[in-house]
Amino acid sequence: MNIDFKKLADKYQTPYYVYDFDYISNQYNELKTAFKARKSLIAYAVKANSNLSVIKHLANLGAGADCVSIGEVKRALKVGIPSYKIIFSGVGKIDDEIRTALELDILMINVESAAELDRVELIAKELGKVARISIRVNPNIDPQTHPYISTGLHENKFGVDIDTAKRMYIQCNNSENLEPVGIHCHIGSQLTQLEPIKESVKIVADLVKNLKAIKIELSFMDVGGGLGIIYNEEKLIDTNEYAQAILETMFGLDITVVCEPGRFIVGNAGTFITKVLYEKINGEKRFVIVDGAMNDLIRPSLYNAYHKIEVLNDNKELSLCNLVGPVCESGDFFAKDVELPKTKHNDLVAIYSAGAYCFTMASNYNTRGRVAEIAVQNGVDKLIRKRETFEDIIALEEEFIN
Amino acid sequence: MNIDFKKLADKYQTPYYVYDFDYISNQYNELKTAFKARKSLIAYAVKANSNLSVIKHLANLGAGADCVSIGEVKRALKVGIPSYKIIFSGVGKIDDEIRTALELDILMINVESAAELDRVELIAKELGKVARISIRVNPNIDPQTHPYISTGLHENKFGVDIDTAKRMYIQCNNSENLEPVGIHCHIGSQLTQLEPIKESVKIVADLVKNLKAIKIELSFMDVGGGLGIIYNEEKLIDTNEYAQAILETMFGLDITVVCEPGRFIVGNAGTFITKVLYEKINGEKRFVIVDGAMNDLIRPSLYNAYHKIEVLNDNKELSLCNLVGPVCESGDFFAKDVELPKTKHNDLVAIYSAGAYCFTMASNYNTRGRVAEIAVQNGVDKLIRKRETFEDIIALEEEFIN
Repeated sequence: MNIDFKKLADKYQTPYYVYDFDYISNQYNELKTAFKARKSLIAYAVKANSNLSVIKHLANLGAGADCVSIGEVKRALKVGIPSYKIIFSGVGKIDDEIRTALELDILMINVESAAELDRVELIAKELGKVARISIRVNPNIDPQTHPYISTGLHENKFGVDIDTAKRMYIQCNNSENLEPVGIHCHIGSQLTQLEPIKESVKIVADLVKNLKAIKIELSFMDVGGGLGIIYNEEKLIDTNEYAQAILETMFGLDITVVCEPGRFIVGNAGTFITKVLYEKINGEKRFVIVDGAMNDLIRPSLYNAYHKIEVLNDNKELSLCNLVGPVCESGDFFAKDVELPKTKHNDLVAIYSAGAYCFTMASNYNTRGRVAEIAVQNGVDKLIRKRETFEDIIALEEEFIN
Repeated sequence: MNIDFKKLADKYQTPYYVYDFDYISNQYNELKTAFKARKSLIAYAVKANSNLSVIKHLANLGAGADCVSIGEVKRALKVGIPSYKIIFSGVGKIDDEIRTALELDILMINVESAAELDRVELIAKELGKVARISIRVNPNIDPQTHPYISTGLHENKFGVDIDTAKRMYIQCNNSENLEPVGIHCHIGSQLTQLEPIKESVKIVADLVKNLKAIKIELSFMDVGGGLGIIYNEEKLIDTNEYAQAILETMFGLDITVVCEPGRFIVGNAGTFITKVLYEKINGEKRFVIVDGAMNDLIRPSLYNAYHKIEVLNDNKELSLCNLVGPVCESGDFFAKDVELPKTKHNDLVAIYSAGAYCFTMASNYNTRGRVAEIAVQNGVDKLIRKRETFEDIIALEEEFIN
């Protein structure tokens, strides 16, 4: 990444997010290539970064979309991802969402409970449609990641156990309005261990074989996403080993592999740039206060997540501090007890690995407008989301004052 | 509160927030009355619930506004809170915000660091104005609340210590562009112990007296907010004892008391209503999945906060479950291991104490539109913020796709 953060700050003001679209291309291509031995669909997990221009860039590369709300499905369609590359997942699909997904004729609905399958069947029947179904299996495997982003244990809300899944496939097979086409598992996010992935994919592949034995032939095996990235000093799963481990389980099956990377594609493409407002000392404690806050980037506060931080000045005089924002609560911090150089008013601070699960979780807390998003490709920068104004923030409530 | 949640769900769909404006009036009046022995300003902490109609309702009752961004100041002015009742607080004020606050001629700027005071002085000088200054003192007192909402310890980013405050008042007094008018302390939110409040107010009152001795006479003593409310079985501070304890410290001082309630005013005025989509069992674990999610109400996920939950059906058959939303992470829950009756599709679920720090922190995570907000007053309901549509969500990025 070679982005002139200072120039962008002058042009677009701070705080802002900037994404390196060339990096996104590289990540996508690396994964696509790793699966080259088979037909594959790389369905980008839109929730990681759902900016329309980001999705559009991936659409141009050939990506599909893994969506978890009808809003995400609409985003994908809007920027040209064809409906046959769109999957709709999620534990809580609302009737209207199911209806719209069927009308839009997307690739498949990834069903997460027996009750949901019944709803989909009912709605498909009402519409006189056949719903293409994938079932999310919960393999009860510990992914060894943060509890909030672990999803593959029975104590998590996601998917169904193997026996339930089998019954649901039989229900699909017997229904005029359901067609079983896929299987899915996803054990968590920010995975750095290959073994749990292997284990869970093997469980899924075994089920595919058992279903084949009873003449239920699936076309798509969706191995989820969750490939970790480097925030700090994580040792990553090698992409080729990952693909290899998955492809091995599929030996003898005529099935397309689907995978759903989000963080892997965009996480390290993004940087959050904020500027220093003040330094202060309270008692023994040094605080560097910047113009970005938890409403812009909540991961440190919500998950106690680590983000690499760099002050963009030449000062070498380091000391411990907390890097905090203007929001009025102590939970508003980017880093605690981190060594940073002495700063001046308006020095820029880069918060790295901010491409995934950062802007998407931004709020207007403290009536702070959401920041600008910028793309850089081939050295050229481009605004991809305008900074929110006060008028934007109050737009939906203004008419009701009387 | 006597609100027909079912009728509102039929009229406005789910999920939604509803606020009881009569309850808000009562809370405001209770506090105002408790301080009746003195001139007082109840400056509503806008960040707790910043819906324009909520602020307008409080404006009609005579409230001022405690604001932590220029956006909040603009909200207050927009609904008719006079500028002389508006305070601008916060550890990280941006130059533009300071400039605007001076131009709008609000009551006072509550300064939180020596560096900030220098900025305010500089900007006031540029504008040829005199900035009315209050200084936030950090009394280094443990408020015995959640670490994220504790603010009165030196390890928190807020305020300055007594000695620094004294120097800053002298700087104000010597400056042509600064006028010392107030003092402020606020040790945290959701306080249920009177003792720490007493101690900190006493520290502040002592400083007021010391300043008076050197001919710096303040007009406003802002004792902050933070009065707790009942989420579960908290034993609350009695409002009259609270006021009494504060007023006692002010004996002999000709000063207006300011207090900044937020949660106290609106917390238990609000309810979040969501509806059941599915039930499922994973292994031994029961999940009730509703159409509301962490993007709508993040407090359980962010603070591990308790909210009382009620399923609005007649079923008496209780069992343990997790109440979760559709968002694709395990952090998306409203309650874990809570006893709830068996539910059916479309049963309503009420999540109480959702008037403060709930909607204000909502995001579009998973491309979910923010929900509708409704006011009920004298038995009459009224929309006060429209449900966000897909078009609203993408409005600021749509034009940049190419």
